[in-house]
Amino acid sequence: MMRTRPLKVALLGCGVVGSEVARIMTTHADDLAARIGAPVELAGVAVRRPDKVRAGIPAELLTTDATALVKRGDIDVVVEVIGGIEPARTLITTAFEHGASVVSANKALLAQDGASLYAAAEQHGQDLYYEAAVAGAIPLIRPLRESLAGDKINRVMGIVNGTTNFILDKMDTSGAGYSEALDEATALGYAEADPTADVEAFDAAAKAAILAGIAFHTRVRLDDVYREGMTEVTAADFASAKQMGCTIKLLAICERAADGESVTARVHPAMIPLSHPLASVREAYNAVFVEAEAAGRLMFYGPGAGGSPTASAVLGDIVAVCRNRLNEATGPGESAYTQLPVSPMGDVVTRYHISLDVADKPGVLAQVATVFAEHGVSIDTVRQQGKDGEASLVVVTHRAPDAALSGTVEALRKLDTVRGVASIMRVEGE
Amino acid sequence: MMRTRPLKVALLGCGVVGSEVARIMTTHADDLAARIGAPVELAGVAVRRPDKVRAGIPAELLTTDATALVKRGDIDVVVEVIGGIEPARTLITTAFEHGASVVSANKALLAQDGASLYAAAEQHGQDLYYEAAVAGAIPLIRPLRESLAGDKINRVMGIVNGTTNFILDKMDTSGAGYSEALDEATALGYAEADPTADVEAFDAAAKAAILAGIAFHTRVRLDDVYREGMTEVTAADFASAKQMGCTIKLLAICERAADGESVTARVHPAMIPLSHPLASVREAYNAVFVEAEAAGRLMFYGPGAGGSPTASAVLGDIVAVCRNRLNEATGPGESAYTQLPVSPMGDVVTRYHISLDVADKPGVLAQVATVFAEHGVSIDTVRQQGKDGEASLVVVTHRAPDAALSGTVEALRKLDTVRGVASIMRVEGE
Repeated sequence: MMRTRPLKVALLGCGVVGSEVARIMTTHADDLAARIGAPVELAGVAVRRPDKVRAGIPAELLTTDATALVKRGDIDVVVEVIGGIEPARTLITTAFEHGASVVSANKALLAQDGASLYAAAEQHGQDLYYEAAVAGAIPLIRPLRESLAGDKINRVMGIVNGTTNFILDKMDTSGAGYSEALDEATALGYAEADPTADVEAFDAAAKAAILAGIAFHTRVRLDDVYREGMTEVTAADFASAKQMGCTIKLLAICERAADGESVTARVHPAMIPLSHPLASVREAYNAVFVEAEAAGRLMFYGPGAGGSPTASAVLGDIVAVCRNRLNEATGPGESAYTQLPVSPMGDVVTRYHISLDVADKPGVLAQVATVFAEHGVSIDTVRQQGKDGEASLVVVTHRAPDAALSGTVEALRKLDTVRGVASIMRVEGE
Repeated sequence: MMRTRPLKVALLGCGVVGSEVARIMTTHADDLAARIGAPVELAGVAVRRPDKVRAGIPAELLTTDATALVKRGDIDVVVEVIGGIEPARTLITTAFEHGASVVSANKALLAQDGASLYAAAEQHGQDLYYEAAVAGAIPLIRPLRESLAGDKINRVMGIVNGTTNFILDKMDTSGAGYSEALDEATALGYAEADPTADVEAFDAAAKAAILAGIAFHTRVRLDDVYREGMTEVTAADFASAKQMGCTIKLLAICERAADGESVTARVHPAMIPLSHPLASVREAYNAVFVEAEAAGRLMFYGPGAGGSPTASAVLGDIVAVCRNRLNEATGPGESAYTQLPVSPMGDVVTRYHISLDVADKPGVLAQVATVFAEHGVSIDTVRQQGKDGEASLVVVTHRAPDAALSGTVEALRKLDTVRGVASIMRVEGE
């Protein structure tokens, strides 16, 4: 039952992802038509430089007027792959107003304004899909929103930024320092000229906000996510991690509190045991661990970025939205009915690995241990190494609230016998 | 917008999975209602022994008359967790005829009669969902059918049977033989009293047929799947695998031929390198690797069986079907438009690891190498070990059609200098 009027797709942005979406739509047109139940065609492409030659895209489809394109009224699906907040936000809401559904890969916008975009979509009876916004090609949003819709998710922990995983993997395998590994990532095209969004974890924090919201059926704003970049991870940290049978990853962690009454979301570097499946995620790959009450532990793994993988996720969404339109229906909208409060980082229960430079004299360990005890933090292991009147003390704690752990570190800094705190890192993934 | 009439679910079967579905529907009723947009209630449970006490299920819901239950006409979703071909098949088609959609966990039935069940669902405007039929709680069917609907899948390779993975993992880690490991699996409840369906790979073959059909948008019948069990894998095979830096897994492999004009599906034990992500799938876990043209390499990992994980998958489907009903729509039906032929095992291109007992005298290697060359099979490595006039020769081939490889083995058996073929195993996962 193939209807004759093709579904029309407008593309906003024709960079690495957009051009790949256009290419696949053209080369796989027959497959897409068979899977949707109707042909789908590229009806317009908004670009900044219309004079640039774009292989496979007829020049007459190109326009610099994105607003006019989304206002045309005959567009079924607007694909937004511009990124950033504006003009993407206005274009998306304008698309809804003019009867189009939207497929977006824009994590920053979704993390900041997801709720209002959902509201606009619902108001106009349109779909908002964004599988490509988190973890590239890895099917993650749909499994969380749909496959696990009958389960209770308690934890989402993952590597959601390929650039920083590439850098940390290089540091781990080659012993390189941060800047050296960053240079290699830049040279190979894994890091942008200005790597701030990646290495300071703004990108991962946006993804954490999106994942936490979906997993816990609540709203988590970007500002709710605790964020710590990975620029201060050193080769010495990796050496410490190795001694513990661990490696270091930049993790996005979304958790439901033990009492179920609040949630937390955070992004920071952390040591994880080499036996943990996330430890073996190499290079620029992404992987996300999901713990659900009935399903148990699931993991989703794949390329987290790149033109083709991201285009695959965008096209999956295009097919879904087109099928919905043929059904005269919409897919699942926002599910934020639980309205759980987001607790601050201090409430997160975690473990610390603390490396101290201390005076090499009797009684230091007792002093240090007393500080931990006073803050209610229980010590798991201590390793002491002396050299020439100086000594180092490596303490790994049991689980405790982050506030108690950071309070402990603050108090340790004030001890005369503690010369310095060489490194602090959280330990995850037991 | 909560409508007042609740959606009604009928449960066929109340064993390990069914009772868990019922429990979650009761304890998480509010969450399910919020996610669906309407309350959902258990309207009846067909069981064989109605007198058995079932915690949390009101006795008045129990019936032995499954046919009357699916014919009631007020049922929205029939959940079939009986298993086997009949009466499951007749009950499912009767459910469609009486206006109910169906969620099934029945891999054997779907592998055998998927096409006719889909046709019945479509004829009556109903949904057929079966996430739980393959790889338990792991979201796999939905990602393949929906997330990757805009991509071209070339290969699906996975561990889809938990029982056999548990046995092989035990053999690998403890050096145990097959029967010893099977005994442990039985004692721990991982293997059934009659383990035939698992160890002879009937279960995995059914899943391979389902996965191949979905991945390649074609029909693959159970009979099309090449099937080899794992009862003949020995401790010696594991020792050989270790020497090659490999382990042994029972793999389901579905491939599109290089020319794209045919597909293959097979299940057999195979050596895979320890560096391959599937090698580290331990105990009764499942994991499936998917290679798609644009998305690249994806992996899905999680518990492949058990009451709770399977119930999680069933409930995800119940939520999806209920949402569809509120939308007065149906989800994606069968997608078998490519109608690609399924090639026989002889056409599959793979590698062999062959261990031969040979006479320890000059010229044997030359003889053996000639046989490989005559069959057009190129040798990757040879390892020769002599002892007391006897020697062993371990040959690993390059990729070649399975027919050429098995023809080579047949010819080798006829050589006077070859005393016996100690083991043959395929090598996968480069």
